[in-house]
Amino acid sequence: MQLYSNFLQEINEALQQQEVALQNSRPAEMYNPMSYIVSLGGKRIRPLLTLIACDLFNGIPKNAISAAMAVEFFHNFSLVHDDILDNAPLRRGNKTVHEKWSANIALLSGDGMLVKAYETLSRCNTEHLKELLEIFSATGLLVCEGQQLDMNFETQNSVSVNDYIEMITRKTAVLLGCSLQMGAICANAPKAEQLNIHEFGKNIGIAFQLLDDVLDVYATKSEFGKQVGGDIIANKKTFLLLKAFELSNDTQKLTLTLLIEDKTIPDTTKISKVSKIFDELGVKEIAIKKANVYTERAFENLTSVIASEDKKNELRQFCLRLLNRNF
Amino acid sequence: MQLYSNFLQEINEALQQQEVALQNSRPAEMYNPMSYIVSLGGKRIRPLLTLIACDLFNGIPKNAISAAMAVEFFHNFSLVHDDILDNAPLRRGNKTVHEKWSANIALLSGDGMLVKAYETLSRCNTEHLKELLEIFSATGLLVCEGQQLDMNFETQNSVSVNDYIEMITRKTAVLLGCSLQMGAICANAPKAEQLNIHEFGKNIGIAFQLLDDVLDVYATKSEFGKQVGGDIIANKKTFLLLKAFELSNDTQKLTLTLLIEDKTIPDTTKISKVSKIFDELGVKEIAIKKANVYTERAFENLTSVIASEDKKNELRQFCLRLLNRNF
Repeated sequence: MQLYSNFLQEINEALQQQEVALQNSRPAEMYNPMSYIVSLGGKRIRPLLTLIACDLFNGIPKNAISAAMAVEFFHNFSLVHDDILDNAPLRRGNKTVHEKWSANIALLSGDGMLVKAYETLSRCNTEHLKELLEIFSATGLLVCEGQQLDMNFETQNSVSVNDYIEMITRKTAVLLGCSLQMGAICANAPKAEQLNIHEFGKNIGIAFQLLDDVLDVYATKSEFGKQVGGDIIANKKTFLLLKAFELSNDTQKLTLTLLIEDKTIPDTTKISKVSKIFDELGVKEIAIKKANVYTERAFENLTSVIASEDKKNELRQFCLRLLNRNF
Repeated sequence: MQLYSNFLQEINEALQQQEVALQNSRPAEMYNPMSYIVSLGGKRIRPLLTLIACDLFNGIPKNAISAAMAVEFFHNFSLVHDDILDNAPLRRGNKTVHEKWSANIALLSGDGMLVKAYETLSRCNTEHLKELLEIFSATGLLVCEGQQLDMNFETQNSVSVNDYIEMITRKTAVLLGCSLQMGAICANAPKAEQLNIHEFGKNIGIAFQLLDDVLDVYATKSEFGKQVGGDIIANKKTFLLLKAFELSNDTQKLTLTLLIEDKTIPDTTKISKVSKIFDELGVKEIAIKKANVYTERAFENLTSVIASEDKKNELRQFCLRLLNRNF
């Protein structure tokens, strides 16, 4: 059974309208890429969380739809710009904006997308606007900071597992927390409840990202939707790699370092040799355990939320499905 | 006598505080470039216009300082990203952000600057926030569109003078209108007055940009502050060039086309040959006349504004000084 299918339908209809509006806006050189990135789909988790939280606190989900759209637009803006920064060729199996058009077009249409997010936010109820604008902007800055930290990692020699958790918290997790909090604001939830649901989302986000790191190595291509081992090929400092460095003996450390520095090694060989060390050290299991810690923390946050038990259970189930990625 | 020196002082103090706050924010890789671009100075015309308009409609200028900062931050965001797009090496006599650091750093810190603009806006009075967010975001989209139109011109064969006016209206002029309107909103001015003062600023902005095109060719370096003839070297489709194409006979048209296509010609020769045709056709005078038309239109808008005649006169004088660029 699909959970929250009515909310998802509402979101898809609103996005469909926005897509058409963008398609018809001029200059096309700027608006077509905006329509394109929105049309690529995705699970629409963030806007869904906004509507879910609004409903959880007995608000009218329709009142949160502009906030939900703003969050989705912000997410799309960050995808377009992050893809430039990461020089990524593909997004959801399709060409990234800078590949399909150019880096300049991706820069400017990304900017347009960010402004569009705020323009959409301005349609929210006046009474909620100050709170919405505050959390949305504070989160926006954290997301940029997270992206910067991630970029810093590339040239940084000693990155700890804690540094990593801090980076994914800002880059990924706080936007999930923000999405929920914005829904709570639209439902007139008290500040304490807003913060509870924000923490819940943030912790789920951290768990989600940790499992994403695991999937990169251990998923099959069909269930993952992107290149398996992509992080290994790109020498990404994921939880697995950082933990492996932390736990490895001198021989394993040397092997890992040589594998990272070797620019001539075929991708498949690199992936199999690095995953072999991962297996020896059991970092997959450690990552899953760590993700479980954050999931439990999230569920504790949710338990303390004052709302209908049925609705809270539905949300728990939704998160478990989101996180249950076949391990 | 310096006009509005008290307002300027207030702005400089607020910016100084922001600069220090940015300097102390982490990660430094993202926040230092933001502090740098703000520190490069400029005339601070936009935030000044916000305080001026607030005062004109009998508001308390202090109440408009967050709106003024938001406008200045937006302007700085657009400078950082436009400099990437234009591949510009210098900004206000200093290295551009992407030259001093990298294109990636400029992209991300520009994004941060844009979010910061909205974060600052969220500090405005709740009662004004919806109106402020609406005009600020609508203007933000127009500015992006203007930049896109300007980029389109590079590969477009037939650009009319009207296309050009439309482009500078969006890229430059509407932000001046918006700055004033935001001040008017902070003073609780009625909608009709807001729109009057917006139109005034927009028309002044168009005049300002037309005279900037003239200055590019006819100023001395010391009064201009950037390379004289820069637009000619870069084949920029300015009002002067477009008007020259419009008025030229076949021989002049051919000469101009050859000069534009010639990649080996020394800069000084190109500048002197192109300006010679400009002189033959009198496009400088036509541009100044056109600028005067927009200035007069602006002053008509101001005349219809319901406010103290003394304050309106002071604003007229301020604009004349801004526009009086020694022709």
